[in-house]
Amino acid sequence: MNREECLRLDAEDSLAKWRAEFAVPEGVIYLDGNSLGPQPKQAVEYVSEALKQWQSGLVRSWNSAGWFDAPARLGKKLAAIIGADPSEVIVTDSMSVNLFKLLVAALRIQLNRRTIVTEVGSFPSDLYIAQSVIRFFPDSTIRAVDADKVLEAIGTDTAVVYLSHVDFRTAHMHDIVSINQRAHQCGALVLWNLAHSAGAMPLHLSQTETDMAVGCGYKYLNGGPGAPAFAHVANRHQPMLDQPLSGWFGHQRPFDFLPDYQPADGMRQLLCGTPPILAYAALEASLDQFLTVDLELVRRKSTAMTQLFIDLVEQQSSHHELRLCSPRQSDRRGSHITLSHESGYSVVQAMIAERVIGDFRAPDLMRFGITPLYLRYVDIWDAVATLTRILDDETWRRPEYQQGNTVT
Amino acid sequence: MNREECLRLDAEDSLAKWRAEFAVPEGVIYLDGNSLGPQPKQAVEYVSEALKQWQSGLVRSWNSAGWFDAPARLGKKLAAIIGADPSEVIVTDSMSVNLFKLLVAALRIQLNRRTIVTEVGSFPSDLYIAQSVIRFFPDSTIRAVDADKVLEAIGTDTAVVYLSHVDFRTAHMHDIVSINQRAHQCGALVLWNLAHSAGAMPLHLSQTETDMAVGCGYKYLNGGPGAPAFAHVANRHQPMLDQPLSGWFGHQRPFDFLPDYQPADGMRQLLCGTPPILAYAALEASLDQFLTVDLELVRRKSTAMTQLFIDLVEQQSSHHELRLCSPRQSDRRGSHITLSHESGYSVVQAMIAERVIGDFRAPDLMRFGITPLYLRYVDIWDAVATLTRILDDETWRRPEYQQGNTVT
Repeated sequence: MNREECLRLDAEDSLAKWRAEFAVPEGVIYLDGNSLGPQPKQAVEYVSEALKQWQSGLVRSWNSAGWFDAPARLGKKLAAIIGADPSEVIVTDSMSVNLFKLLVAALRIQLNRRTIVTEVGSFPSDLYIAQSVIRFFPDSTIRAVDADKVLEAIGTDTAVVYLSHVDFRTAHMHDIVSINQRAHQCGALVLWNLAHSAGAMPLHLSQTETDMAVGCGYKYLNGGPGAPAFAHVANRHQPMLDQPLSGWFGHQRPFDFLPDYQPADGMRQLLCGTPPILAYAALEASLDQFLTVDLELVRRKSTAMTQLFIDLVEQQSSHHELRLCSPRQSDRRGSHITLSHESGYSVVQAMIAERVIGDFRAPDLMRFGITPLYLRYVDIWDAVATLTRILDDETWRRPEYQQGNTVT
Repeated sequence: MNREECLRLDAEDSLAKWRAEFAVPEGVIYLDGNSLGPQPKQAVEYVSEALKQWQSGLVRSWNSAGWFDAPARLGKKLAAIIGADPSEVIVTDSMSVNLFKLLVAALRIQLNRRTIVTEVGSFPSDLYIAQSVIRFFPDSTIRAVDADKVLEAIGTDTAVVYLSHVDFRTAHMHDIVSINQRAHQCGALVLWNLAHSAGAMPLHLSQTETDMAVGCGYKYLNGGPGAPAFAHVANRHQPMLDQPLSGWFGHQRPFDFLPDYQPADGMRQLLCGTPPILAYAALEASLDQFLTVDLELVRRKSTAMTQLFIDLVEQQSSHHELRLCSPRQSDRRGSHITLSHESGYSVVQAMIAERVIGDFRAPDLMRFGITPLYLRYVDIWDAVATLTRILDDETWRRPEYQQGNTVT
């Protein structure tokens, strides 16, 4: 493999046309779309339109401009992207807030079971929320195990299995089908965190009999910084839902202003307060784009590019102390590649200075998000070449690259 | 009083200049700023700037553009508007979500007290949240009484008194000082809902020894549809805070990705998920405007205008079946006027058709928000004249004005 072959692959790539739809700055190789997706060009137009609706329609826009229906409307669009029924998804709040709602709801459905099974390496916010939830349920516990011990940790005492489909550190990907099957055999529910898979690959929530899921809008879904998150609950579980953030937007008839809470039917009962419309507008711009994308092609290109990344690192940088932390087996690998390096933080900073943007996760992980809609094969080549040069030249030792933090 | 006198009052009004800073459509008299504030002209610029930061700074903007600090930065600005210490306010989530956090936190502080005292007429979402919270605390109860019975309902079993400072239906305004004093004598905490007072009048949370408060950003604060809400906790209570939505943004060191939750110091511990930056940008545009507004003048003009509204209705419409539901005593009145009319829904629709925008609240309440920054005395004159004409001509009986709903 050489740079020319990468250029050739790009020339033949049927997804290549999508790159023009994103506002990625010239000269930047953006390998952090798994943290904050770049801006779809039409986001500016959608947000401007929402500003105009606010300006001229004023309060009437809740009805006339469809603001009131935004959580369900965006939910329907997302459902198509993650392989769920349109009635199974709602866009609302943040992922951690939605996780709180659904973990409480799951423990209320599972009256006689008090164990949450999860992974030691879950996204920390998920663990924090679970730790909070069990304080409300006497005798409930969290059983956190390593990724390869999850199947055997599920038992007849398990209320709910809560897992990240794709691990935020390593990109290790669970097999949804086998986990769902094992859990269902034991009478447990499964709640998936799709933060690192929604928008990155085809998902089949209905077909895999997934019970519940949460995910965020700002990573592979390109919905903008802190974009509204989503929640999924299979139709069969919705009648049993009983969630604690029972605000007026989740009420059966919010505008009757009744003194007692009566949850709305379906997913609307997961709403709480008034939704932030400007943030919804940006996310909707991206979802509308995704509705015309073939996610099978995205996954295929992603797999090819992550493999290329691994191959090139091993070809060019094998003399450096780099360790591959992501699975080699492509069907176990999400859409980013993680390498560890003792001075990973500084190496990432040095790469950013050369306009190759990845991110760092403590203690020593360098993450590189591989997002086929706006990345080219040649970007992978150039990114690995930059990494190799920085390691060869020890550029990362410069004082300006030491210490500090990046976000998400 | 006649229309010319109103014009004269406008000519002398030192707040009149502010009207030019808002994008209220020509010919509209907007009396619903208590539901959704209109757009400050600079909101467009602030949101465009946030879009540019996303576009060109990408993930780096979390640090370089101050996104990470937005909740605390906007909190500091809000603190100045509501008379709190800069370290006592944070902007985050929706009001209902923040209420959930603080009601749970209050019950955890008040170990041996299990009664929440509130009003029967509270904003329904607040009641729904309280109903949810008491399910998590065995033996806890809600004591909901009429507004004039609140003082006597507070006792030594009261954990927390939760009240709307200004009633969303009637604009009845509680005296913060006497409620706080009575509660503190009994060892109870007070949690105020400031949705209908923040931005409408000067508040003095520190001076009045207020314990906790929540409020929304989209009413008098003009922060845009579903703008982020705020939470206030007095410095003296912050070390005891223990809130249930323990997401990573509220962690002491979120980017260390530690497996156990350790709350951040101060108000940052009330954060949960990743904040929606575009929504923060619009709110910040408005807060920056408010920082240069004299809220004493706003309150004085508001009181004069609500009084004018009452006087004109009684002068022009006394032959109709209208009932004033707002307090006559101006120091007990917030910044809107509520009239009841058997066909209130239709009357409001007929007024909206003539570009006088108020709103309707079941069963028969017509609400008119009086917001001094963009309303003129002559607008009050013209609004009441429109109301009178619609009642005189019975325009409201037209089929197109029957049935339906408006939002917030």
